[in-house]
Amino acid sequence: MTAVCPTPHHEDDVVLLGHGAGGRLTAELLESLVLPALDGQGGPLEDAALLPGHPDLVVSTDSFVVSPLFFPGGDIGGLAVHGTVNDVAMRGARPLALTVALIVEEGLPLPELRRVVRSLGAAARAAEVPVITGDTKVVGRGAVDRVFVNTTGVGQRHPGLRPSAALARPGDAVLLSGPIGLHGTTVLSTREGLGFESDIASDSRPLHRLVAALAPLGEQVHTLRDPTRGGLAAALNEIARDSRVAIDLDEDAIPVPDAVRSACDLLGLDPLVVANEGCMVAFVAPAAADTALTALRARPEGRDAVRIGEVVPGGPEGRVTLRTLVGARRVVDMPLGELLPRIC
Amino acid sequence: MTAVCPTPHHEDDVVLLGHGAGGRLTAELLESLVLPALDGQGGPLEDAALLPGHPDLVVSTDSFVVSPLFFPGGDIGGLAVHGTVNDVAMRGARPLALTVALIVEEGLPLPELRRVVRSLGAAARAAEVPVITGDTKVVGRGAVDRVFVNTTGVGQRHPGLRPSAALARPGDAVLLSGPIGLHGTTVLSTREGLGFESDIASDSRPLHRLVAALAPLGEQVHTLRDPTRGGLAAALNEIARDSRVAIDLDEDAIPVPDAVRSACDLLGLDPLVVANEGCMVAFVAPAAADTALTALRARPEGRDAVRIGEVVPGGPEGRVTLRTLVGARRVVDMPLGELLPRIC
Repeated sequence: MTAVCPTPHHEDDVVLLGHGAGGRLTAELLESLVLPALDGQGGPLEDAALLPGHPDLVVSTDSFVVSPLFFPGGDIGGLAVHGTVNDVAMRGARPLALTVALIVEEGLPLPELRRVVRSLGAAARAAEVPVITGDTKVVGRGAVDRVFVNTTGVGQRHPGLRPSAALARPGDAVLLSGPIGLHGTTVLSTREGLGFESDIASDSRPLHRLVAALAPLGEQVHTLRDPTRGGLAAALNEIARDSRVAIDLDEDAIPVPDAVRSACDLLGLDPLVVANEGCMVAFVAPAAADTALTALRARPEGRDAVRIGEVVPGGPEGRVTLRTLVGARRVVDMPLGELLPRIC
Repeated sequence: MTAVCPTPHHEDDVVLLGHGAGGRLTAELLESLVLPALDGQGGPLEDAALLPGHPDLVVSTDSFVVSPLFFPGGDIGGLAVHGTVNDVAMRGARPLALTVALIVEEGLPLPELRRVVRSLGAAARAAEVPVITGDTKVVGRGAVDRVFVNTTGVGQRHPGLRPSAALARPGDAVLLSGPIGLHGTTVLSTREGLGFESDIASDSRPLHRLVAALAPLGEQVHTLRDPTRGGLAAALNEIARDSRVAIDLDEDAIPVPDAVRSACDLLGLDPLVVANEGCMVAFVAPAAADTALTALRARPEGRDAVRIGEVVPGGPEGRVTLRTLVGARRVVDMPLGELLPRIC
């Protein structure tokens, strides 16, 4: 506990935006307040949980509060499908079904609600994952901002595929399925009218078919994670922590689109902490790295897949470092709190 | 389509509070907008859906937006557990696990959030249903009213128990597990400071053990439903519609606590349309009615179980009627729209 990292332990403390940002404040809120109350086991926080008594089934839930509702490359409806499909997939599972729960503000134009729901339906059909049940609540004006969407997904694990945030091993190759930073910068630019939104679009897309492409590699696939809130920095820090390993990245290898880099420069953001909704990292045994890259690149959503680093034997546990373009080496920290509110 | 029942078909129409009230407006919104977009099959809307490929597993989702967060007999945390446990149970299933997704307003005092989450955890433990995964989002002040909770549940059906809203049959006994009207009147009275809240308390409680008590009756249990939003009137109208039967109720047999009756008289509400969170209706074959009543009454949450009516052979399909105390007979309509906003 340091001055830059306050723990919410005073009774007069309040919830901060940063508590929901996927960084250190989020982890603290979960560890100090939520998990103890819910009997959390203190194990690795995975994207999806195993269903008790059904070890082949996984479950994941996510609420979507993105603002604005519509942005280049996506909208809250598609995002709600992709986000949960991807969380299920990151446990090595094929999504079987989704639930959808809408909380709608009184006065929302019905055409806007229709557009959200149609996009959600279209995304579910495109992902070939049925929406099997749902819930619709309406609350008074001002009690919710337009519409929030919760999706929960159930998936069935591919035989032999058992990835976990705790299973990265020294020597593993760290693969990334595509460029980073598009979703966060697009939503932020659209919301704030920064002008980048004509050059970039969210990468919102389902990743379960990329996972299926890796399934034949079985237990050589150690860890899968989609770097959403908190970006690549948060995802890799969580993996380094839960697997007790050191991860070394090659900055030169990490694909950052020019428009993302420009937007991040202007905003003072590190592309590594910007949310993504359509790429994933895969930690695979070194002998399987080339096969895995080929499998990823064979699909459109993985055609830009690259190797961005490795798990270094003997490095400090939980540490993520970056070999920069100028040959220096810097630590990639877990982001603290809210950089980009309501990005998903 | 009549003057009192507008269909949302104009592009300048907006979402109304009544669209989320569980009555006719909700049904119209679902049928005209949500279900077509999501490929809804147009079948009976059950409390929980079957998981594709796993016919013994059911899934249900619900968002909780109750205001105030705390009220006599319960709070949003316990309600979020009971509501989804009960929806899963109404498909004849034993709940296996819950997911919890919180949307929290920036500035909410942490002690208040802690109280909600602890209550949620305590309710899950008491119900013996683990919370296996979750999500926490924080949005800016004014973007949500304090905290909303989504829970999704997965359950495993009891062998031989296959209740459905479409399976009520002529001759069935209609059983009710306990008194009606407590939850809705308690929340409303607390929110509006009407003063009844010292005499009444929400019936928020889990019902899955009552369902387990009926499991030995197997296929003689035709329909189970917990009458939440829209109350007993909405639940029975849905069953009459989906099963294409006529239901006849005996007003004298329906237990309405005195304080509920007083509150409803004052507010001009019919207790039949007030939300409940701790009672259920069961449609059982006539030969099994006495056994079912005995089984329900053997549990504390079912000790006041009564027979309130029957499915009448040859009656008009979809019609629910009430034999009143004075010997008259009146139609129990599907409630139109919002009577008690944000009751769950």
